[in-house]
Amino acid sequence: MRGAVMYQAGDVRIESVPDPTIQEPTDALIRVTRACICGSDLWPYQSLKESDGARLMGHEAIGVVEEVGRDVRTIKVGDLVVMPFAFSDGTCMFCEEGLQTECIHGGFFGNPDVPGAQSEAVRVPQADGTLYVLPVGEDDALIPSLLTLSDVMGTGHHAAHVARVGLGASVAVVGDGAVGLCGVIAAKRLGAEQIIIMGRHEDRIALARDFGATEVVSERGEEAVERVKELSRGLGVDAVLECVGLDQSMETAIEIARPGGAVGRVGVPQHEAMPAAQTSFFNNITIGGGPAPVRAYIDELLPDILEGRIEPGRVFDRTVDLDGVPDGYRAMNDRESIKVLVKP
Amino acid sequence: MRGAVMYQAGDVRIESVPDPTIQEPTDALIRVTRACICGSDLWPYQSLKESDGARLMGHEAIGVVEEVGRDVRTIKVGDLVVMPFAFSDGTCMFCEEGLQTECIHGGFFGNPDVPGAQSEAVRVPQADGTLYVLPVGEDDALIPSLLTLSDVMGTGHHAAHVARVGLGASVAVVGDGAVGLCGVIAAKRLGAEQIIIMGRHEDRIALARDFGATEVVSERGEEAVERVKELSRGLGVDAVLECVGLDQSMETAIEIARPGGAVGRVGVPQHEAMPAAQTSFFNNITIGGGPAPVRAYIDELLPDILEGRIEPGRVFDRTVDLDGVPDGYRAMNDRESIKVLVKP
Repeated sequence: MRGAVMYQAGDVRIESVPDPTIQEPTDALIRVTRACICGSDLWPYQSLKESDGARLMGHEAIGVVEEVGRDVRTIKVGDLVVMPFAFSDGTCMFCEEGLQTECIHGGFFGNPDVPGAQSEAVRVPQADGTLYVLPVGEDDALIPSLLTLSDVMGTGHHAAHVARVGLGASVAVVGDGAVGLCGVIAAKRLGAEQIIIMGRHEDRIALARDFGATEVVSERGEEAVERVKELSRGLGVDAVLECVGLDQSMETAIEIARPGGAVGRVGVPQHEAMPAAQTSFFNNITIGGGPAPVRAYIDELLPDILEGRIEPGRVFDRTVDLDGVPDGYRAMNDRESIKVLVKP
Repeated sequence: MRGAVMYQAGDVRIESVPDPTIQEPTDALIRVTRACICGSDLWPYQSLKESDGARLMGHEAIGVVEEVGRDVRTIKVGDLVVMPFAFSDGTCMFCEEGLQTECIHGGFFGNPDVPGAQSEAVRVPQADGTLYVLPVGEDDALIPSLLTLSDVMGTGHHAAHVARVGLGASVAVVGDGAVGLCGVIAAKRLGAEQIIIMGRHEDRIALARDFGATEVVSERGEEAVERVKELSRGLGVDAVLECVGLDQSMETAIEIARPGGAVGRVGVPQHEAMPAAQTSFFNNITIGGGPAPVRAYIDELLPDILEGRIEPGRVFDRTVDLDGVPDGYRAMNDRESIKVLVKP
């Protein structure tokens, strides 16, 4: 089959790669009908070394089940399924508590052991625990929004959930990428009254406003902190959604939380030590988050998509076929595109 | 009056200092009947520079109200009161939500503006919000335990509360000082099933066991992490109480939390950046804590002291008069004493 292989920073090629096969009795194979490029794919796109080894990319997909291993019980051939970015058995203590990204038998897509989904087909370990059957056809108009359940919508929701967003909350969203935009949707959905989007790209800001952002802060660093405080009675906001992962963005996130507030971080941290340890301590700020258990959130988010109350699929502003994937990376990296949808 | 003045690291003197007076109509003056030396007093004892300026030390006390300002409504002359280490108005949005250490009109004792309680008397700002009237006499046998409500018992409870300790939880307590020991009491009180005390001082470990610790880990660093994991199914514990504040202790705290677990930190951080930012992210660990709103916790903790269910006063293993305070600092700093009680 064909798939997107990253060799090193900036070097993504569409190539013939081995067809996936059932390796474990709990595996399923899916034919990928939609995939996408993730903001987190841009970290290796900017930094992967040749010596790190090539990898078949992609961890978000919708597809049709083509084959299942002999121990797969609930997933059937022909099902249209959404594939979360992490696989999980659905039965361990972590899955039981809704933290599938910490599953004892779990892992992530897009590495030598479990190749990725920017391809024609993908092997899905722990199929029963991982895959979620969708109640629509494979070309349904809702497919882009449903595809975001594989990562960005669930990730934005995780940030909001961890930051304890509730009715009447004041919220700031650090980062205007697809996850930040979904964070705006999540905050609005959970009842936030004030939603400040922090970013500086006009197209993204416009979309954030459509999604429910009430204010925009385009400054950075100390100026951004001052501006958010002006907008929040001088105290900072109840909840901050950190959707970037850089040292500066995390520092800003902590500085703009009000005393007793919370930061939900979902941007993969690019630092070894978290900044502003004194501020977070003296302000009694709670910091949580990590890889989002998006599998756990589908039950809650799916009805809102099916009934049109949220439209996270609007974060896709470009659609490519497999051959268009390398340019899709470039476009996202150059901030020409918010998020690229792939039709293999 | 006489009080304990710290001039620089290692230099604490008992001197004549100005008598406190009512400065604001919301102030009260209390005659200090009991005070103590805090583990956090040891940070300046180890590092204060002469150029930082001398300070009248002490932020924990029980005393008798001698005078009140004209706007004080609930506190009366003659009341025996416990004085939390932070003063607070009791009415602002932070006090309303039980976070008195973030009070808009609040602050801390033991600085040039609000001198400390290792003295014969102390001025208490925001008396109605700050002070808590005790239903016992000033020489009651429960006084040492009641005195811990001014800081260490409430602080240990804060760590446990923030770390979400509940029925059946596995808990590790990093640090065997008075706060760590009170953290053991708090964890037991909240229903923890397993309580691992991490420390290496025999007297403290023995007390921790009396308070409910089920296991002891005396190793440090990587060895400590391995040992705690061995004791917790290889996963780490549900809740970690960080009661030290050093870079290494915080790193250990994060490393020994299970995926999805929580760290409650109450040790004043001696670092600018929090270690193990990758581990805390990829394990979805929640980190909270800060200066404990001990005023908020008195209602909950007091009955357990009055009815003898908890005995945090056992952390005091030495009693001195004011003249004994300088040697009390030395003894705590040399780990000869866990916590020193002061009878002015």
